[in-house]
Amino acid sequence: MPDKISFSDQHTSFDFDQQLSKYQKRVETYLSSALDKLPAYNTVLLDVMRYSTLMGGKRLRPYLVYATGQMLGLSLSNLDAPAAAIECIHSYSLLHDDLPSMDNDDLRRGELTGHVKFGEANAILAGDSLQSLAFSILADDRMPDVVTEDRLAMLSELARASGATGMCGGQALDMASEYLDISLETLELIHHHKTGALLRAAVRLGALAAGETGRKALPWLDQYAKSIGLAFQVQDDILDEIGEARKTGKKPKSDQQRGKATYPGLLSLKGAQKKMAALYQSSLSALTVPEASVYNTLPLQACAHFILERHY
Amino acid sequence: MPDKISFSDQHTSFDFDQQLSKYQKRVETYLSSALDKLPAYNTVLLDVMRYSTLMGGKRLRPYLVYATGQMLGLSLSNLDAPAAAIECIHSYSLLHDDLPSMDNDDLRRGELTGHVKFGEANAILAGDSLQSLAFSILADDRMPDVVTEDRLAMLSELARASGATGMCGGQALDMASEYLDISLETLELIHHHKTGALLRAAVRLGALAAGETGRKALPWLDQYAKSIGLAFQVQDDILDEIGEARKTGKKPKSDQQRGKATYPGLLSLKGAQKKMAALYQSSLSALTVPEASVYNTLPLQACAHFILERHY
Repeated sequence: MPDKISFSDQHTSFDFDQQLSKYQKRVETYLSSALDKLPAYNTVLLDVMRYSTLMGGKRLRPYLVYATGQMLGLSLSNLDAPAAAIECIHSYSLLHDDLPSMDNDDLRRGELTGHVKFGEANAILAGDSLQSLAFSILADDRMPDVVTEDRLAMLSELARASGATGMCGGQALDMASEYLDISLETLELIHHHKTGALLRAAVRLGALAAGETGRKALPWLDQYAKSIGLAFQVQDDILDEIGEARKTGKKPKSDQQRGKATYPGLLSLKGAQKKMAALYQSSLSALTVPEASVYNTLPLQACAHFILERHY
Repeated sequence: MPDKISFSDQHTSFDFDQQLSKYQKRVETYLSSALDKLPAYNTVLLDVMRYSTLMGGKRLRPYLVYATGQMLGLSLSNLDAPAAAIECIHSYSLLHDDLPSMDNDDLRRGELTGHVKFGEANAILAGDSLQSLAFSILADDRMPDVVTEDRLAMLSELARASGATGMCGGQALDMASEYLDISLETLELIHHHKTGALLRAAVRLGALAAGETGRKALPWLDQYAKSIGLAFQVQDDILDEIGEARKTGKKPKSDQQRGKATYPGLLSLKGAQKKMAALYQSSLSALTVPEASVYNTLPLQACAHFILERHY
């Protein structure tokens, strides 16, 4: 597994942390303003929506939307809406996954989870509202250079990645598999859906916003996105095994304690780390196909590396 | 309050029950086939989605989509997608509203509610998945005569009516108002959002599908839709006061017992019935504006009458 990689090649050097921080600020400002536009007659609902979307987070999905779209030549003003929309879906999924009847988590990023702070009903409703808001933003908000057909394709993509065919399907299969001996194939199926679908959708949204150019790039971008989607989850499992609560913001080994299969559990810690390295290489390979050579893929390479190295 | 109304006027006579039954069958067939297309790797999730969407129901929202669109000249094949999509949103809202932390209902239409039959986590996830499915259907499914711009407007409409600006906002305000002395204005605000938003969206989706023709008809259709939306909820409160569990499928006075303000509670039973009659008249008035005279509004008139007279 590569320990240190320098992200300077034929194009330019690249500072991932700086870029991530820039995108984080941008999407948070945009989300905050989208929430400000909602009617104020119910402050609790808005409080929960605000708390769960603006309490922090890596904003990896927005990063992937922005980075992919910019790489393909779009200006950021076309990418705010899809970046914010996919983060709304992600935030809603965390609110619901943390519920007592689901993963029953009290802490998220070191802070109280939504239902602990605001009660279950408000957490459920705020999650539901965030899902609707995602589609509102994507249907209504300004994307000056995106034609209507592409916007529609983006709505379709986000819906498919969120529901039974994607994230929710993965979460359901995950819960149904608790305390069962499942195969590596089933574990991959779970995680390609539960976590992978939305990370993949982030890259695809950035590509679809770029119209014909983006559609041509979809095959290799999709290969990249699938690899990092699964890699993200393998690393999550590794962090569950060895991570420190201080950094991850949740209790260590909480997955195992609730009878969930993990990559280290099925492959050993060493096997899981080997799997990570292979997925990382596969994501980089996708970016070296001839069709990719005209683009500066450094921001996507750096994101794959961040996923490999992350401690939280 | 009119006791018996004959729905035969300048156009033709009209059999509401027959038409409702025809639309019910149509949307149920469509929904069933949409659910069949979902991947089968997780049977429990699909079981709950199937149970909650296909266990019956009046299908009033699909009726309004079909009736409005047909009145404006569209063929039914253009209206299946919006009819099914809005019913997915309605079904998800029932699954979530019935949860222990929300209204805590065991019975719905005389059958066990989703969480009682399948557990809370599955009810939450199936609701989440149905919301995504609604947007998938509306983004992807065949509407042969609907142009992309109008489809996009329909997606925007459905998202707005579902979230914090509509149904979820109403439910949140409803819960926040339990055991409080609220004014009639607040009660109307709650119900215009909680129930009204989606009924109104049903009419608006049927109109938006009809493009320019539909947009011209929106002002009076919207007035009609707002009136029946509120009327539906007033009648719901009246049924909660005087209805029989056998017919309504739920316990009588359950709203009052959980500290919810109702129209009979604020206005007396007689006052609530008077309010119903006024809303009914207002819905009919909307259909008698000159612009409406070229259309056969009998199916919409009959629906208003059904809402006035319904016992379940």
